[in-house]
Amino acid sequence: MRWPTRVRLILPGKIKFPFVKEGASFYQKRLNHYFPFGIEEKKVPKGKDQAVKEKEGEIMLKALGAGSYVIALDERGKSFDSLSFARFFQDLLEKEREIVFLIGGPFGLSEKALRAARLRLSLSNFTLGHEIALLVLLEQLYRAASIISGEPYHK
Amino acid sequence: MRWPTRVRLILPGKIKFPFVKEGASFYQKRLNHYFPFGIEEKKVPKGKDQAVKEKEGEIMLKALGAGSYVIALDERGKSFDSLSFARFFQDLLEKEREIVFLIGGPFGLSEKALRAARLRLSLSNFTLGHEIALLVLLEQLYRAASIISGEPYHK
Repeated sequence: MRWPTRVRLILPGKIKFPFVKEGASFYQKRLNHYFPFGIEEKKVPKGKDQAVKEKEGEIMLKALGAGSYVIALDERGKSFDSLSFARFFQDLLEKEREIVFLIGGPFGLSEKALRAARLRLSLSNFTLGHEIALLVLLEQLYRAASIISGEPYHK
Repeated sequence: MRWPTRVRLILPGKIKFPFVKEGASFYQKRLNHYFPFGIEEKKVPKGKDQAVKEKEGEIMLKALGAGSYVIALDERGKSFDSLSFARFFQDLLEKEREIVFLIGGPFGLSEKALRAARLRLSLSNFTLGHEIALLVLLEQLYRAASIISGEPYHK
């Protein structure tokens, strides 16, 4: 089945690594079979300081609809195994109108963006580069959608 | 600096996803600046049953040199944060002649292959597809090498 819930993934800036771009479009097509799914690369100011991170966060937050269920990737967040994440995600698909994932840039998400999230999600004990984190998240969404739909999905 | 320790990553079969192939060769080149590094895709029998997994394990074990330090990826294994993994890996680079990572196929590693390992390493609480696991491991090796070398490495 295809759920009506819109699922969005918001990133600050363009994906840089060509292999990550390809992987993202691979999963984007597949996820779109299960729900309307989009990856949004927001234009953000360049730079490395705290002010830029704040600005980035504001731009990402402005893109949110009212009443979206926001999940922020955060190393210090909650971790799941794939089955419990699938169950949690299924519950959201059944209840929410829009689910938005926020991924930070190389310096993470601003405090404001983190505070806007209903869930802070950790993908690994390792610190993952944000582009690798994107691939891991996409694969988990695909895995969750397959599990919820009762389709075989092997490692 | 470039360490003399040889680091090998052994997989059963060819990498399938084109974006993972690209990502693997991206990291392979970079890792090779720090130590002699190779990814070996071993030819294994096709199939899904336990006998094939055993056979796969045997082929991977046959590729090991005497005295290699073997690390097997295993969901139920030990997890690290990036800094402690870098410290652990540095210690291996200083002491060992050869470090070998074993990654299982879609059905994981055989018991025999797991038992041959000095360390079972878990990358995430999530079950990762073995090709995504490969990218996560490669990025952590690159991150570890950068940390050990005192180079800046941001998320």
